[in-house]
Amino acid sequence: MESENRPLDALNRARGHRVMVELKNGKQFIGTLKAFDIHINTVMDDAEERIDGSTTRRLGTVFLRGDTIILISPE
Amino acid sequence: MESENRPLDALNRARGHRVMVELKNGKQFIGTLKAFDIHINTVMDDAEERIDGSTTRRLGTVFLRGDTIILISPE
Amino acid sequence: MESENRPLDALNRARGHRVMVELKNGKQFIGTLKAFDIHINTVMDDAEERIDGSTTRRLGTVFLRGDTIILISPE
Amino acid sequence: MESENRPLDALNRARGHRVMVELKNGKQFIGTLKAFDIHINTVMDDAEERIDGSTTRRLGTVFLRGDTIILISPE
Amino acid sequence: MESENRPLDALNRARGHRVMVELKNGKQFIGTLKAFDIHINTVMDDAEERIDGSTTRRLGTVFLRGDTIILISPE
Amino acid sequence: MESENRPLDALNRARGHRVMVELKNGKQFIGTLKAFDIHINTVMDDAEERIDGSTTRRLGTVFLRGDTIILISPE
Amino acid sequence: MESENRPLDALNRARGHRVMVELKNGKQFIGTLKAFDIHINTVMDDAEERIDGSTTRRLGTVFLRGDTIILISPE
Repeated sequence: MESENRPLDALNRARGHRVMVELKNGKQFIGTLKAFDIHINTVMDDAEERIDGSTTRRLGTVFLRGDTIILISPE
Repeated sequence: MESENRPLDALNRARGHRVMVELKNGKQFIGTLKAFDIHINTVMDDAEERIDGSTTRRLGTVFLRGDTIILISPE
Repeated sequence: MESENRPLDALNRARGHRVMVELKNGKQFIGTLKAFDIHINTVMDDAEERIDGSTTRRLGTVFLRGDTIILISPE
Repeated sequence: MESENRPLDALNRARGHRVMVELKNGKQFIGTLKAFDIHINTVMDDAEERIDGSTTRRLGTVFLRGDTIILISPE
Repeated sequence: MESENRPLDALNRARGHRVMVELKNGKQFIGTLKAFDIHINTVMDDAEERIDGSTTRRLGTVFLRGDTIILISPE
Repeated sequence: MESENRPLDALNRARGHRVMVELKNGKQFIGTLKAFDIHINTVMDDAEERIDGSTTRRLGTVFLRGDTIILISPE
Repeated sequence: MESENRPLDALNRARGHRVMVELKNGKQFIGTLKAFDIHINTVMDDAEERIDGSTTRRLGTVFLRGDTIILISPE
């Protein structure tokens, strides 16, 4: 029970599922959450970048540095 | 008594209740506070984003990186 | 005597009193100082937001993340 | 002798005297230096804010978060 | 298995291969990933800079400071 | 020999001599380097501020917070 | 072999040679790399500043604070 009250547990439950990551520069990345660490460094597979709702790039695997991330939300 | 004088105790009392989180980019998120840690990384359920008072997105569960947060206030 | 020479002692003396907190985004919050920690994370009760001297919101209890704070001054 | 070669020793010698503190947002605060710590969190008494050389506010006691400070100089 | 769930493992698998690094200032660097550390300080060989999709400089070996990096993606 | 290869050794050799310090806000300070620490917090004596090459203020002793400094160069 | 896979090893091989350092404010410094540390604080000799490809200043020895650096590349 206690362990479900830590923020990283929410990320852990999203592992293997599609998530949306929003960055400080306003860009979004949609992909399958593969890995994260305590800095919120994050790796996604089958990732695509979206700006203003439109897919602008398909990137495959992408490593995002944690300090550029605003939020992560399961799709 | 002493423990009630620490900032994270105020967040702890808000756990399970609706809170408003305001970010450095000016956006607000309203949702049920599920979890937070010492970095103020925060997880909300049933979250919606508001910009200038209007609901702009419904996000379900959202993980917010602590360093993007300005304030958290119970609704 | 020595202890009165540390910055957090000034905050400690303000606990329970009305203070004005000014943020990096230019906003001010006036409220009763309830709690703070070494990161200057701060909790106020009966808080109101002021922009350019006008009260723009009443927030009740508010948690302010320390790294967004420029200054704290007793009213 | 050695101890006089550390930056905080210069601040220590200014304790109890009028100093000017300049912030990253361009504002200056003039007041009596009461306390500081290794983060350069600073407390001044009888403080006034100056913008472009004009006194814009009288604040009494003010706590300034260290990371907002550019410089401190004795008057 | 567990080790494949850490973000730096994804970078480790990209070592020796062409990657695209995107910086906070909007520039991209394409090159062969030679080295990285826990700060995401990164060294590339045969690197070229791209702005808006056009090659603007050829730099040979380049050391990129980790805190300027938004993302790293294998080509 | 080895010790001459550390960046702070260069600052140490400049102690007692005139140096130019350039800040992130574009201002320069010229003065006698008195003290510095590992955060590059720096104290100068007989300091003057220069903007665009013109002396804009004479400050006597000035404490500069390290994180505002871009570079230090002996005159 | 392993040691050649760490980013600072690339800087170590550049010691004593001409390098180009690019800063977050867009300026470049060209000089002989004398010293660096784990924060990427860097000292160059015979340094000159370049803006938009033109030499704008000759600085002799210059200490650059690591957090202002984007990249370092051997000439």
